[in-house]
Amino acid sequence: MLSVSTRGHLMPASPIRKLVPFAEDAQKRGVKVHYLNIGQPDIETPAPMLEAVRRSDFKILAYSHSAGNESYRRKLVDYYRKADIHIDHTQILITTGGSEAILFAMLSCMDPGDEMIVPEPFYANYNGFAVAAGVKIIPVTSFIEDGFALPPISALEEKITSRTKAVMICNPNNPTGYLYSRDELETLKAMVHRHHLYLFADEAYREFCYTGAHFSTMQLEGIEENVVLLDTISKRYSSCGARIGALITKNKQVLDTALKFAQARLSPPTFGQIAGEAALDLPQDYFEATKVEYCSRRDALVQRLNKMPGVFCPSPGGAFYAMARLPVDDTERFCQWLLESFSYEGQTLMMAPGSGFYTTGGLGRQEVRLAYVINREDINKAMDCLQKALEIYNQLV
Amino acid sequence: MLSVSTRGHLMPASPIRKLVPFAEDAQKRGVKVHYLNIGQPDIETPAPMLEAVRRSDFKILAYSHSAGNESYRRKLVDYYRKADIHIDHTQILITTGGSEAILFAMLSCMDPGDEMIVPEPFYANYNGFAVAAGVKIIPVTSFIEDGFALPPISALEEKITSRTKAVMICNPNNPTGYLYSRDELETLKAMVHRHHLYLFADEAYREFCYTGAHFSTMQLEGIEENVVLLDTISKRYSSCGARIGALITKNKQVLDTALKFAQARLSPPTFGQIAGEAALDLPQDYFEATKVEYCSRRDALVQRLNKMPGVFCPSPGGAFYAMARLPVDDTERFCQWLLESFSYEGQTLMMAPGSGFYTTGGLGRQEVRLAYVINREDINKAMDCLQKALEIYNQLV
Repeated sequence: MLSVSTRGHLMPASPIRKLVPFAEDAQKRGVKVHYLNIGQPDIETPAPMLEAVRRSDFKILAYSHSAGNESYRRKLVDYYRKADIHIDHTQILITTGGSEAILFAMLSCMDPGDEMIVPEPFYANYNGFAVAAGVKIIPVTSFIEDGFALPPISALEEKITSRTKAVMICNPNNPTGYLYSRDELETLKAMVHRHHLYLFADEAYREFCYTGAHFSTMQLEGIEENVVLLDTISKRYSSCGARIGALITKNKQVLDTALKFAQARLSPPTFGQIAGEAALDLPQDYFEATKVEYCSRRDALVQRLNKMPGVFCPSPGGAFYAMARLPVDDTERFCQWLLESFSYEGQTLMMAPGSGFYTTGGLGRQEVRLAYVINREDINKAMDCLQKALEIYNQLV
Repeated sequence: MLSVSTRGHLMPASPIRKLVPFAEDAQKRGVKVHYLNIGQPDIETPAPMLEAVRRSDFKILAYSHSAGNESYRRKLVDYYRKADIHIDHTQILITTGGSEAILFAMLSCMDPGDEMIVPEPFYANYNGFAVAAGVKIIPVTSFIEDGFALPPISALEEKITSRTKAVMICNPNNPTGYLYSRDELETLKAMVHRHHLYLFADEAYREFCYTGAHFSTMQLEGIEENVVLLDTISKRYSSCGARIGALITKNKQVLDTALKFAQARLSPPTFGQIAGEAALDLPQDYFEATKVEYCSRRDALVQRLNKMPGVFCPSPGGAFYAMARLPVDDTERFCQWLLESFSYEGQTLMMAPGSGFYTTGGLGRQEVRLAYVINREDINKAMDCLQKALEIYNQLV
């Protein structure tokens, strides 16, 4: 009689976390595991951010404004201006991580049963927020052969129904690393304008673009009311534990609505906001060094992958992820086997099985996502393991 | 064509925040405003909590475990044991404030359209989480004449329908300060047991009880599967900005479900968890001094109120709120008038109109909530203002 909710049943368990016990067991057996499975950067958080928190001298850890500290929002205006995104501080709502920004966007713009079109593969946690909000994700498949480019706009358009309220993109993309071109975004703009849809844009990885400049949905002219930008400092400044993000929109009604949801939860974390505000004083070249580092890791990883027989990995234009196709039957089984039954020179690797990033059944079973959040030396060791593992695995099966 | 969601429309704006612009204007005119309207304690956050954050020496501000740091959860077991609540660390999920614990409980145990019975007046933000979760709050009125005791159980029982999934209480209560007796809780237990309902218990103010010991819903025997405890360090340690709470239950299915929602949002704030863990090393007598302070404020406030002609304020047994009935037509109008048109010796006060805490239309219009989060001297000055204001206001109307 006492049962959990239907949506609780529907709520997907994290596809990556299923493998965690196997990784822990491997470690207990003394095997070194190279973690390429999650987007927790190994880059140090900029010291001035941590110092700002450590130097804080208030006596009462009080609620902040529900929209976030005004001083922080005012300073963010400058940050966005440098990215050619022109807003004022009243158009920014500070959230508890990018996660909360995504949830607030869905709650504010969509009702239960409404549909949101999302190119797949996509960040698996969108599913979680969609279940919480009662929103239906309608996937449109992008293909590894195309480097996961935006599918033809007709493929998106034919998914539109009377319940479609939004399109959501992540740019550059998690999990594919794909960097959407200005042309692709202009095509999307025409569609959302034509059909009066919201365009939710997750730009968590804005600074990490390797093949060209980032073009933001906020730069698209004529759909200012449609665009809701979902942002976070987690990856940008290696500050995942700060739990600070932002929902940004020029649509006043959406912002006012999101603010009501924000008021119910009172305020975003105080210490995280202090860290976030301090980040805005970092020297302009801060991202340069980080970008150079990620770019060289990407090159190392992608080169090694594509040299392995039967492996294909398109070179990602941004973020710090790559999706690769492996010559195995089922990467879920393969990834578990890597942790459970394989080691090479006392080492193995953990990757995220591709199927967790697809909604369409059966897709992604030959794919894995690799996060290049470990240093080049370790990337090479991990690739040594993968190469060896593929040789052995296919002889076993 | 582009509109916000229906639930966004339904989402209530904070009843207190409506008055904020009037308070700001009063301040601009040079009037000192005594803020009795919100539950932001003026008590200093214990120094060891802030020092723990300031002394932290990690280099990467990383995600924590989605359920919260294990070290923190393990130490919390001791804290709860001292409160005669016997759990282990796997039964604790650390949340982003008590707010998130409330939301997760609703999402995990209830589906859209399901009903939750709540004695009114109740903490207004329950409405916000209910809208977010699509849950319907069914109020059962408690009365100021009874000191806001639990209504007769028959009044709750007759509200039960096939959609009723939970009863929610806040003990001691915000906004009334009422401390539920063990007898009342045993009666509730029998009802939730009889009807297979969840019992959500918000115990944010557990330590602040003045008329007797706190008896927790977690101490009720035989309904271990029904009880979901919703907790927070915000008020306990004057740490509202930490954004750290907890969802605690012995119902494994509920905890596992809540954990899936927690995994989607990745982790609670890292710094807040450090502060929360440090709080567990505070000396046992920490709460004594705080309690003595709140208790003397309560006495001062309630005495002053009840001496004013036509005013009635039952003495609250816990928390740091009191609900008073005033001899005015509409406290919303009166509270605005206090800020807009009144001052006494250059001062005025801000209170929360009672109607915001009721769901049943028309109730609470003569009531206000006063939070005694300012020192006694200021409480007395605020009461001077209120006394004078009541004399004048009723001559005006």
